[in-house]
Amino acid sequence: MDSAALGRFADLAVEFGANVQPGQIVSIGAAIGQESVVRAVAEKAYRRGARFVDPLYFDPLVKRIRIEHAVEETLDFVPHWYGDRVLALGEAEAALIALSPRVPPDLLSGLDATRAGRDQLPQLKELTRVINDRTVNWTVVPVPSTEWAVLAHPELGPQAALERLEQEVAHVCRLDEADPVASWESRMDLLASVSQRLTERRFDAMHLEGPGTDLTVGLLPSSSWLTARFSTKHGLEHMVNIPSEEIFTTPDPERVDGVVRSTKPLSLGGTLVDGLTVRFEGGRAVGIHAEQGEEALRGYAAKDEGAARLGELALVDSESRVGRAGTVFSDTLLDENAASHIALGQAYAFPVGDDDSGRINTSQIHVDFMIGSDEVAVTGLTAAGERVPVLRKGVWAI
Amino acid sequence: MDSAALGRFADLAVEFGANVQPGQIVSIGAAIGQESVVRAVAEKAYRRGARFVDPLYFDPLVKRIRIEHAVEETLDFVPHWYGDRVLALGEAEAALIALSPRVPPDLLSGLDATRAGRDQLPQLKELTRVINDRTVNWTVVPVPSTEWAVLAHPELGPQAALERLEQEVAHVCRLDEADPVASWESRMDLLASVSQRLTERRFDAMHLEGPGTDLTVGLLPSSSWLTARFSTKHGLEHMVNIPSEEIFTTPDPERVDGVVRSTKPLSLGGTLVDGLTVRFEGGRAVGIHAEQGEEALRGYAAKDEGAARLGELALVDSESRVGRAGTVFSDTLLDENAASHIALGQAYAFPVGDDDSGRINTSQIHVDFMIGSDEVAVTGLTAAGERVPVLRKGVWAI
Repeated sequence: MDSAALGRFADLAVEFGANVQPGQIVSIGAAIGQESVVRAVAEKAYRRGARFVDPLYFDPLVKRIRIEHAVEETLDFVPHWYGDRVLALGEAEAALIALSPRVPPDLLSGLDATRAGRDQLPQLKELTRVINDRTVNWTVVPVPSTEWAVLAHPELGPQAALERLEQEVAHVCRLDEADPVASWESRMDLLASVSQRLTERRFDAMHLEGPGTDLTVGLLPSSSWLTARFSTKHGLEHMVNIPSEEIFTTPDPERVDGVVRSTKPLSLGGTLVDGLTVRFEGGRAVGIHAEQGEEALRGYAAKDEGAARLGELALVDSESRVGRAGTVFSDTLLDENAASHIALGQAYAFPVGDDDSGRINTSQIHVDFMIGSDEVAVTGLTAAGERVPVLRKGVWAI
Repeated sequence: MDSAALGRFADLAVEFGANVQPGQIVSIGAAIGQESVVRAVAEKAYRRGARFVDPLYFDPLVKRIRIEHAVEETLDFVPHWYGDRVLALGEAEAALIALSPRVPPDLLSGLDATRAGRDQLPQLKELTRVINDRTVNWTVVPVPSTEWAVLAHPELGPQAALERLEQEVAHVCRLDEADPVASWESRMDLLASVSQRLTERRFDAMHLEGPGTDLTVGLLPSSSWLTARFSTKHGLEHMVNIPSEEIFTTPDPERVDGVVRSTKPLSLGGTLVDGLTVRFEGGRAVGIHAEQGEEALRGYAAKDEGAARLGELALVDSESRVGRAGTVFSDTLLDENAASHIALGQAYAFPVGDDDSGRINTSQIHVDFMIGSDEVAVTGLTAAGERVPVLRKGVWAI
């Protein structure tokens, strides 16, 4: 990115994404290679009156070296000061800006999968707690790199691939608009109004129907539909993902039945999963078949009791710029915004009320895969048996 | 550095410098730009059985951005988790490897000096505590960069300057020896025997005499002479600086009298101080004159009550490879090993016994400047008035 593009990106991340306030501490979670973005964000944050900018650089190659050479029993060790810092950021009610991806999608290729699976860094369990406490205004924003670009565009040379990815990322982040924030606000207003109507109907379940797909996903009594426009417990608005095109909820992990076919390939820790069909019975994925990458997904789904149950249902309409790009970005931040999706594994707590918080799915995994398209109809089912159109041919019907 | 040179460097830092033990956590304090060294050190540490390698990258350009743009009153703020991590490393009895310099010598050029002075990062006061507790086996090692090389060799182009600096650093670190560790052990054995003899004589003061210099530095009753070969409280040996050529002690801050002329230029936060003469009375620097950079040193010496008194006296013989190189490296880790030196400001506690610990100098500064040469004779003065030759024509006489 040139310095003008960096400045626009930093404006969007600091002003709209995290909505940094004067006097705040601003954590920047980054990886080696993202220095120019970190510095642009730091300058913007200080100009906005940040008290302190705390950049933390993750070195993915040190992670790889660890998996290659460390004693196996030590691979899940994380020093307590990693989590302590996150909890302290929560106590300080800081702003958190995470640059994605911190780990190149193919970092772990060629490594022993069991050893690789034991090292969960840079993920920290304490972050879930801080996010659920709603003490921090946070955002995750994508930063193109050459390593990432050649995975997304293997047909192009490195330089051309990077230019293409930078262009696509700028477009899906609406940085090619005269006023990106206004464009986002208008898009989020629409998604918020849809999610509000969905929540108000208190559907008992959602039904997805299309080529290869006939799936019913039960909802919990208090399941609300949310957009990526969050607010802290003090009412400070922030946009947790840029881009975000989804409205999502936490489903009932005991009531998912039928069959679903994926509509886009999925990049799973460096392995491409394509042509996927999953059969659910009583909430559990009882059959997983794929033309490519089947074993990888089966391995994830067998990790623990909740790994074969759903933790998320998200709807995306055909206006999504990510979906329209047609690229498999091999990065969840972008790919999950391409189409409606479900996620195996850990659920978010905040879409449900206290009464249902004990019923949501728990797992050490969270794997999103895309199941929506213009050919997949989404219908809300009420407890009384009414069928209400929600998405038809990729357009909101509610 | 090529990968073979990186490997030799990492061996020296991990095996000899920090003396990393199996099962230890290893902190690597680094700056953006030192990634290849960090990774070589990480690999070496994991191969040696480290439990976890914790690289922490400081971004000097974010520091510069902060000084340029942050609200002035916030510039001395440091989040508590910075110091907490250092204290936790002490509690974990970790190994600490610091790559130097973390801040390019000219980083702050052109910035407002008052604003720049308020931001002390990456220095943390908690580190002094951990070092004095002797819970960690630590080392500081030099990593050449192009930015540093062009300051050390302004007459050369960037590439030639880097090659020259890399060559010099390899030489002063004895990496050009067939067995660098054996070479260091032999050098340190000699320095240790000199320091032991100096300590045993319990000199009341040291007298330095040469062109422009006639200085008496009083010692405390328990002042011991030490080399950079430390051991933790559990007896684990480590080499705190590579290279190190000095033997040093903590003087009596009340008894320094006479005049001293610098024998090498001093780089003070990016300002070169040269042709320096300092007059001491009753321990205080009462006259500071320099052909170049006088105001910069006066500013430092006026920082607080202890800033005009001595915190260190170190002796270096003419065998020093740093001194023989003849280069002003503009980095204290190297420059202070070029020649005998004194330091204004904060003293080390460990060279003195508990009875004298309340008498050592305290200050927020510690500025080393070189006062030794082959023409400066160093003599030990006993309480009984005996004069014992210590250094003559750059050679140990004791």
